Amino acid sequence: MKLKAVLFDLDGVLYQGERAVPGAAEAVAWFRERGIPHLFLTNTTSRPRSALVEKLARMGIRVSEEDLFTPPVAARQWLERRRCRSIALFVPGATRKEFEGLDLAGDEEQTAGAVVLGDLGEGWDFATLNRAFRLLMADEKAPLVALGLTRYWKAEDGLRLDVGPFVKALEYATGKEAVVLGKPASPFFQAALERLGAGAGDTLMIGDDIRGDVEAAQRAGLRAALVRTGKFRPADLELGVEPDALLDSVADLPGWWAAHAG
Amino acid sequence: MKLKAVLFDLDGVLYQGERAVPGAAEAVAWFRERGIPHLFLTNTTSRPRSALVEKLARMGIRVSEEDLFTPPVAARQWLERRRCRSIALFVPGATRKEFEGLDLAGDEEQTAGAVVLGDLGEGWDFATLNRAFRLLMADEKAPLVALGLTRYWKAEDGLRLDVGPFVKALEYATGKEAVVLGKPASPFFQAALERLGAGAGDTLMIGDDIRGDVEAAQRAGLRAALVRTGKFRPADLELGVEPDALLDSVADLPGWWAAHAG
Repeated sequence: MKLKAVLFDLDGVLYQGERAVPGAAEAVAWFRERGIPHLFLTNTTSRPRSALVEKLARMGIRVSEEDLFTPPVAARQWLERRRCRSIALFVPGATRKEFEGLDLAGDEEQTAGAVVLGDLGEGWDFATLNRAFRLLMADEKAPLVALGLTRYWKAEDGLRLDVGPFVKALEYATGKEAVVLGKPASPFFQAALERLGAGAGDTLMIGDDIRGDVEAAQRAGLRAALVRTGKFRPADLELGVEPDALLDSVADLPGWWAAHAG
Repeated sequence: MKLKAVLFDLDGVLYQGERAVPGAAEAVAWFRERGIPHLFLTNTTSRPRSALVEKLARMGIRVSEEDLFTPPVAARQWLERRRCRSIALFVPGATRKEFEGLDLAGDEEQTAGAVVLGDLGEGWDFATLNRAFRLLMADEKAPLVALGLTRYWKAEDGLRLDVGPFVKALEYATGKEAVVLGKPASPFFQAALERLGAGAGDTLMIGDDIRGDVEAAQRAGLRAALVRTGKFRPADLELGVEPDALLDSVADLPGWWAAHAG
């Protein structure tokens, strides 16, 4: 295998809950010190990148904000590379910051160059969803850009719909297929590769999710390592997905890389 | 062909806009006088059946309310035959009347025996859609019953999302497949057959929509006649769908029936 770059999953690989996986800080430092291109991929959009950087720092893991690759970061890059103008945002307030400086559509505009959908939560009502729908119908070339396809999440008071169901509603209503910038969709991995300037075949994804990390990365042409931490269960190995590497934890990645990546 | 029952599409078959198709009243009377079992199928849920009966009467077409088969009528029958209890309705006020007398769930209940989705329009907000979602997740056996899958409709101020996108949102979020009681879904035709006590192969659907009437009815096992009125276009005949009969209009149905149905 000839590998040049790494994509790290966060939750379950570098930490579990509020505790670092032993050896994670050293593993990340190993790649940083050698100048091996890498990014940290996460679908989390509920808090700003700075909060994630602080959380990791509290656990002794040094990561810079620029190396955190989230759906909004990927979407911004995707929109910039296609020179999209008059972009209509349907994302929560904290996520809007990630799109500062782009050419954004005003609330009253009847057309848009692109429609970006995030987890608006309580912000969704009929008028808001219908506005996104009309903008997509007003210009058949306007893409529907989705910050992931997560179905729901568990809030304190019970389950809550995430962005995915609203993306599916608009896909069905408009007949358009969304560009999904979040795991496990291939465009998210491709955007990360563009950012690194790396080829798919030269890049390793390391994750704890046999479907969302390993299978998804391999579908996008990447190599993928599975760790036995986080949500890993032995039964994951019987699903017909063959990781390129199987490691006890991210702590073993530098040793594996030294032996196999050349 | 051995035919015993008829399903009439309304719009484009019996009338176009506010005018009856010439001969439609006589054709309907011909079947009524002979006691040939028949129903009138429509996806319209925006106004009560009584308003449709009046509209038809103004055009000289005599139809009784009991013979109008709409998505709410089909849904009610479906729920009654399965003895569903604690039914949660997400339908507009006018449609609620069609479900009077059933065992309905209160607004505060945490579980439901079935969830019924209609075109709530402005009534959709996050809390409402999330409540339907939680009810469907609370009991894995609770069916999602949809009053059609229409994508959108054209209101005076522009396009408006109909029930379909919200059904798709909940299907995706819950992993459940909706029971769709509206054309072109097969369960709607099956419910109409149950109501008539007729077999699929003994029943003719007559409509002006090569996909939504003819192809859909044939997929459900029925015979289907296409009329050259309403939304019919000659190009419809080149789509690979073969109607069992092709008539200039519904006025020709009695003559065709007399010649072919025995």
